[in-house]
Amino acid sequence: MQPRVDLITVATDDLAASRTFYVDGLGWTPTLEVPGEIIFLQANRGLLLALWDAEALADDMGMPPGSVLPGAGFSLSHNVASAAEVDAVLNTARAAGGTILKYGHQADFGGYSGYFADPAGIRWEIAYNPAWRVREDGSVELGLIE
Amino acid sequence: MQPRVDLITVATDDLAASRTFYVDGLGWTPTLEVPGEIIFLQANRGLLLALWDAEALADDMGMPPGSVLPGAGFSLSHNVASAAEVDAVLNTARAAGGTILKYGHQADFGGYSGYFADPAGIRWEIAYNPAWRVREDGSVELGLIE
Repeated sequence: MQPRVDLITVATDDLAASRTFYVDGLGWTPTLEVPGEIIFLQANRGLLLALWDAEALADDMGMPPGSVLPGAGFSLSHNVASAAEVDAVLNTARAAGGTILKYGHQADFGGYSGYFADPAGIRWEIAYNPAWRVREDGSVELGLIE
Repeated sequence: MQPRVDLITVATDDLAASRTFYVDGLGWTPTLEVPGEIIFLQANRGLLLALWDAEALADDMGMPPGSVLPGAGFSLSHNVASAAEVDAVLNTARAAGGTILKYGHQADFGGYSGYFADPAGIRWEIAYNPAWRVREDGSVELGLIE
C-alpha cells in the first residue's frame, strides 16, 4: 500500500450549512456535487475533501447507525487501479495488523471498494474508481458512473 | 483561506501499535518522530499524516479530556506563512460561520497556531510553522524548533 491519501471524507449532519461555509464563505470550488448527498472539494494536488452525511458514511463503512459523529467521524481513501488491487491492498493491511471492515465489493458509486481499520480504529477505504482522474495540474476530474 | 490540507492528524491510543502497522507493516517512512509522542508520515505531495495520542490532540485543540476518541478523532491543518496570517484566516473562518476554538497563540511546537470548528464541528488548525518546508519533489522537510 503506497503512502498516499486521495480523499478525506468528513461527516456532517447539515450538508447545506457545510456548503454555505466552504463554498459561499471560504470561496472553495466544488469538484462534484450530488445535491443533498455529498460535496467534493479540491484540496491539494490530487486530493479531494468530501463532505458527506454522517449516517451515509457510517453505512458505507459497514458501521452501525449513530456510530459516526458529525464533525468527528471521517475516513481516509486510497485509490488503486483495479478491483484486484483493492483486494490485494486489503490483504496487505490485514497482514500488517489491520481489521477488514468491509471486503471488496461493487460500490454504490459504481466502482469497487472495501474498508479496513488500522490498530487504533482509523478507517481507510481502498477504492477503484474508473471515474477518478488526476489532471497534470493536480486537479481531480471526478465523474459519476451511471 | 486557500483550499489546502497540509496535515491530517489522527488520534491513536497506542502509538507503538500504530508505528508497527504503518512503518513495519506497510513500509511507510516517517518524516519525523518524537518517540512516544507523535509520528509524521509523508503522504501525498506536501501532505503529512500524523499519528498522535488522543489526549494530547484533545488538549491541543482546547477540548476536554476524553473528547477525542482514538481512531475517530482527527484534525485538519492548514499552514500559512506568518502568525499574522494565522489570525487573519481564523477571522475569515469566523466570518464565514465557523467557531474559534483556540485563538492564535505561541504553539507548543514553537510556531503559532489556532483552531476553529466548521459548522458541523470539524476542527481545523491554522498554523505558522517556520520548520515546515515542502521540497521540489513534494516531500516535506519538518524539523523541531528548539
